[in-house]
Amino acid sequence: MEGGAAASTPAALPYYVAFSQLLGLTLVAMTGAWLGLYRGGIAWESDLQFNAHPLCMVIGLVFLQGDALLVYRVFRNEAKRTTKVLHGLLHVFALVIALVGLVAVFDYHRKKGYADLYSLHSWCGILVFVLYFVQWLVGFSFFLFPGAPFSLRSRYRPQHIFFGATIFLLSVGTALLGLKEALLFNLGDKYSAFEPEGVLANVLGLLLACFGGAVLYILTRADWKRPSQAEEQALSMDFKTLTEGDSPGSQ
Amino acid sequence: MEGGAAASTPAALPYYVAFSQLLGLTLVAMTGAWLGLYRGGIAWESDLQFNAHPLCMVIGLVFLQGDALLVYRVFRNEAKRTTKVLHGLLHVFALVIALVGLVAVFDYHRKKGYADLYSLHSWCGILVFVLYFVQWLVGFSFFLFPGAPFSLRSRYRPQHIFFGATIFLLSVGTALLGLKEALLFNLGDKYSAFEPEGVLANVLGLLLACFGGAVLYILTRADWKRPSQAEEQALSMDFKTLTEGDSPGSQ
Repeated sequence: MEGGAAASTPAALPYYVAFSQLLGLTLVAMTGAWLGLYRGGIAWESDLQFNAHPLCMVIGLVFLQGDALLVYRVFRNEAKRTTKVLHGLLHVFALVIALVGLVAVFDYHRKKGYADLYSLHSWCGILVFVLYFVQWLVGFSFFLFPGAPFSLRSRYRPQHIFFGATIFLLSVGTALLGLKEALLFNLGDKYSAFEPEGVLANVLGLLLACFGGAVLYILTRADWKRPSQAEEQALSMDFKTLTEGDSPGSQ
Repeated sequence: MEGGAAASTPAALPYYVAFSQLLGLTLVAMTGAWLGLYRGGIAWESDLQFNAHPLCMVIGLVFLQGDALLVYRVFRNEAKRTTKVLHGLLHVFALVIALVGLVAVFDYHRKKGYADLYSLHSWCGILVFVLYFVQWLVGFSFFLFPGAPFSLRSRYRPQHIFFGATIFLLSVGTALLGLKEALLFNLGDKYSAFEPEGVLANVLGLLLACFGGAVLYILTRADWKRPSQAEEQALSMDFKTLTEGDSPGSQ
């Protein structure tokens, strides 16, 4: 990191990032508390295997996926490649943890003889997982290895950002649907009697939505975008002139 | 509209807008079909009063709210004030229709002796409604009447856009939660047997998510933003110089 570069971090950004992390950690802890206090905890080789599903999904497809999106805002003065590798790695961790969560629920359904993939939650969940995997593959091959020509990267980047944010929001929505499903299955009529479990899970739902909102806010604030570094800009211009010979906004 | 201004509409934009409208109308029709075919239709003075709730919410807080956000992309060559009034009016229609939907469900609960506001869907719904009303009031007083000073408007505009999009997405998420709730209440175990009603409602849920995604895409594409008109730019500059005497990016 260069000495003078740190000054370019917007004054309010660290507070917003800290707030988002507080929200994210609280919602992971609250998911654990919900499963531990009211659902009997987590174990792979028993009926508690199901409980691995919500915890893995909240950690992987909500918290880690959200943090992976923030990497370019937080590490704004590191080399672009380092940030890019971290972004890709966080998404790999998220994918692997989500895969464990997916195996947990399918395995639990198989052992219990329950039907698979009939609910809106499961349809959205499979859609999210497939889109997330495809987005990762395309992102990796365009931006890391083997890498696409500069002109193609420039055109794909806004799409990558839009679909990344959309997949993240769909993940949050799918988590809300799953939480609702679990509450209605487990509490039934007791839900309307304001049972502590129902209230705790509703608060968890609101926290999920707030975390989604906080990540989206940090991501979309125009003056918080990562500044292009001088050497990257020079390189980009060279590439641009070589490959296209036109101006950046001409598409 | 000026003769030459129409040429500034991006070539692909009308197709994306048409697609979003097709999605929006399909999801309103499908909500009607679901309620008509499987839930006995709609009537105010009977048990069917509940069914006014999902229909009003999908028309008001999803379709009309979404379309209100697109007004600045669609009417890009009209006078700014005309577009602004249309944006505000569409939101008023959406609010009034949503209020009817809200009265329907509270009235139905009261008649049946059901508890209010215990579920995650209801918590999110009330949050959406309050935020939407506050956003409308603040937007109206800043941008229409009495109107805020130019410097304040410029600072508030990005927040207005961010919170507008967020409230819209939360509306879509709340609709998904409500749909899920209705399915689990009404279908119970039959949901996992792939009953036609369950499949239709799942498709409706996916359409809701797609409509949210389509509106967000049109709204956030940088090269589709409404261009500032020449006279507005000149006026802005005058105001800016008079009130602040600094550059637009100095905040």
